[in-house]
Amino acid sequence: MALIVQKYGGTSVGDLERIANVARRVAERYDQGDKIVVVVSAMAGETDRLLGLARKIARIPNEREVDVLLATGEQVSVALLAITLESMGYKARSYLGWQIPLRTNSAFGAARIEDMAKTALMDDLDAGNIVIVAGFQGVDPSGRVTTLGRGGSDTSAVAVAAALKADACEIFTDVDGVYTTDPNITSKARKLHRIGYEEMLEMASLGAKVLHIRAVELGMIHQVPIVVRSSFDNEEGTLVCAEDSDMERTVVSAVTCSAKDAKVTIAGLQDKPGVAARLFTTLAEAKVVVDTIVQNVSEKGITDITFTVSEADLAKTLDICDKIRDAIGATGVFGSDDIAKVSIVGAGMRSHSGVAGRMFTALAKEGINIEMISTSEIKISCVIQRKYAELAVRALHDAFELHKSP
Amino acid sequence: MALIVQKYGGTSVGDLERIANVARRVAERYDQGDKIVVVVSAMAGETDRLLGLARKIARIPNEREVDVLLATGEQVSVALLAITLESMGYKARSYLGWQIPLRTNSAFGAARIEDMAKTALMDDLDAGNIVIVAGFQGVDPSGRVTTLGRGGSDTSAVAVAAALKADACEIFTDVDGVYTTDPNITSKARKLHRIGYEEMLEMASLGAKVLHIRAVELGMIHQVPIVVRSSFDNEEGTLVCAEDSDMERTVVSAVTCSAKDAKVTIAGLQDKPGVAARLFTTLAEAKVVVDTIVQNVSEKGITDITFTVSEADLAKTLDICDKIRDAIGATGVFGSDDIAKVSIVGAGMRSHSGVAGRMFTALAKEGINIEMISTSEIKISCVIQRKYAELAVRALHDAFELHKSP
Repeated sequence: MALIVQKYGGTSVGDLERIANVARRVAERYDQGDKIVVVVSAMAGETDRLLGLARKIARIPNEREVDVLLATGEQVSVALLAITLESMGYKARSYLGWQIPLRTNSAFGAARIEDMAKTALMDDLDAGNIVIVAGFQGVDPSGRVTTLGRGGSDTSAVAVAAALKADACEIFTDVDGVYTTDPNITSKARKLHRIGYEEMLEMASLGAKVLHIRAVELGMIHQVPIVVRSSFDNEEGTLVCAEDSDMERTVVSAVTCSAKDAKVTIAGLQDKPGVAARLFTTLAEAKVVVDTIVQNVSEKGITDITFTVSEADLAKTLDICDKIRDAIGATGVFGSDDIAKVSIVGAGMRSHSGVAGRMFTALAKEGINIEMISTSEIKISCVIQRKYAELAVRALHDAFELHKSP
Repeated sequence: MALIVQKYGGTSVGDLERIANVARRVAERYDQGDKIVVVVSAMAGETDRLLGLARKIARIPNEREVDVLLATGEQVSVALLAITLESMGYKARSYLGWQIPLRTNSAFGAARIEDMAKTALMDDLDAGNIVIVAGFQGVDPSGRVTTLGRGGSDTSAVAVAAALKADACEIFTDVDGVYTTDPNITSKARKLHRIGYEEMLEMASLGAKVLHIRAVELGMIHQVPIVVRSSFDNEEGTLVCAEDSDMERTVVSAVTCSAKDAKVTIAGLQDKPGVAARLFTTLAEAKVVVDTIVQNVSEKGITDITFTVSEADLAKTLDICDKIRDAIGATGVFGSDDIAKVSIVGAGMRSHSGVAGRMFTALAKEGINIEMISTSEIKISCVIQRKYAELAVRALHDAFELHKSP
């Protein structure tokens, strides 16, 4: 008898028929003798509808009350799923964030899970109940409703799985697993049977949308096996788990692409200690998240710094840079959102050399100029012109022969 | 500086524009220096929409989970009103039932309030916040969401007013007060400036829909002055309060009419102890609420019993009576929903004789036959054929000259 946490996204519970479909899947698993906790998102479109109402009232609606508003989306889903399972003759009980309680900090709209009680849920499971948990929501130390931010239901599911020491956390979604790259970009994309937490983490950071990044982090910390699979068929899906020797045979596992960044160049900086610190401290205070940073070799004590930020932060970033331009002695500030970041990810890079060379060669063959490069132990990212993004993905997918099973 | 509880019904918060209208009214009162607690219902139609979803899934959906579902309606309203007030520059904070907490028993769908904490709300009011409370919902001893039943937001508002010892509880609705009778039946209906709790209680029991009966009960117990007024204008409304010598001058205050009852006659019963007990105990066990009961004088040890139940319970009641028919020695069971109950209500009846005679004469003049009569200290009800209901109301309104101010 296993303890399984299943998470169903908004599309999977988009209407009563789909909720009935989810209920049947859950019931089938329960009938096999497993203990089941189901975590659900709001019905597809509901979170946007509610947020739309709030934004009609105020450009920046009060974030505490927006969380109260948004939390109703998941509340409706858990109730409807519980009603469906009860009508099928199963014992089901819904839990809202505060009822568990799933405790978070007070960062409304993007709260972080601090801890979670497990007694009530375990008692219910032991009594033969199917437990249904509202994803995306928690309660802060002062008893206010919080939400975890977009994709937060994935995080809720992994947190529940970690707290209950579940045997697996199955994330049911509208795709049937994690692919070597976006199948919309190349039909050669291949579904991965398994992938390591760290690789998945890099992929999530680099634009792959299949799993929420904090869910992967939590899974890695607590060693929760996460399975990504489709709620519309019975395909096997992709297992996200700790690396094993098997996986290390693959040098590159996937190619990702993100077209939501912009680059900013600060020119004519004096190359002396403290200048970069001043710049990036100021940006951090304004809550601008800086991604890749490249500094040119200085000539005659003068250098350039180029860095990327999210496209949405570009205007704000340029404003800030202009304001501190004189203080840091820069001669110019330039910004552009005409960029994309293509990355290759693979745990096997650790022990293989020549991967970077192969990547740059593949891009060069297509006449794609590399503007910035950043690397970690298990990924290499290149910033290129946005119009080449899809071409670059296809070229890299071919170059590393990702269509072939390892 | 007064402490005022204001309750706005579903129509008053039916869309964002109306919510803005409510926010302006609340803000205006706050600006006058009063402390304000606002209790809101779900947006008009929302409770029915949610209930419709649940009933599409199951004929009798799980009542615990239905309460989880329905409670989202008020949660959306409080959040939207708080966002609106915050966007206008006021400090507002929403409270859900469990956050107060407003504790109820576990009668899901029709929970009764047991007690309510006031510290959090008072602290917020003292800090200059406008407090917004989700009506209709509470939390049971095991931490589950409960709802108070239709009209429950009125009850929430009066409970909050009682707990906080508010100076008044204003119920804003789509009518501008309590009338001598339904203005849709006669244009001579007159708005009452004030009415006693007990009269209001009788009126609510007898078909007047303006205030929820449990709200009036709570108000009477805790002596909370309740004002019924329109959220669409600034008219004075009706004050529901303890009787005073002023009010006693009015013998009859109002005429009510209910066309939602049915009558059942059990014929040929043996007139001996225990028969009626057996009948009504069986009905009570089946949760059938019996209203008026009339037993004929027996002839030769044989009698008839006629009683009324709600129209919705008629089929169930006939079933039960048929089953115990032989056991109680009845010769026949007959049912009809072709009845209406017209009533006159007035605290002044206590000290006036001749009221019943005047009522029966007025009905007789119109050729209306009285099938059953029941009385209390402050009301007289007559069951008549349903087709005469409106005629009877007009006749009684005229007979007691209710169009004239006392």
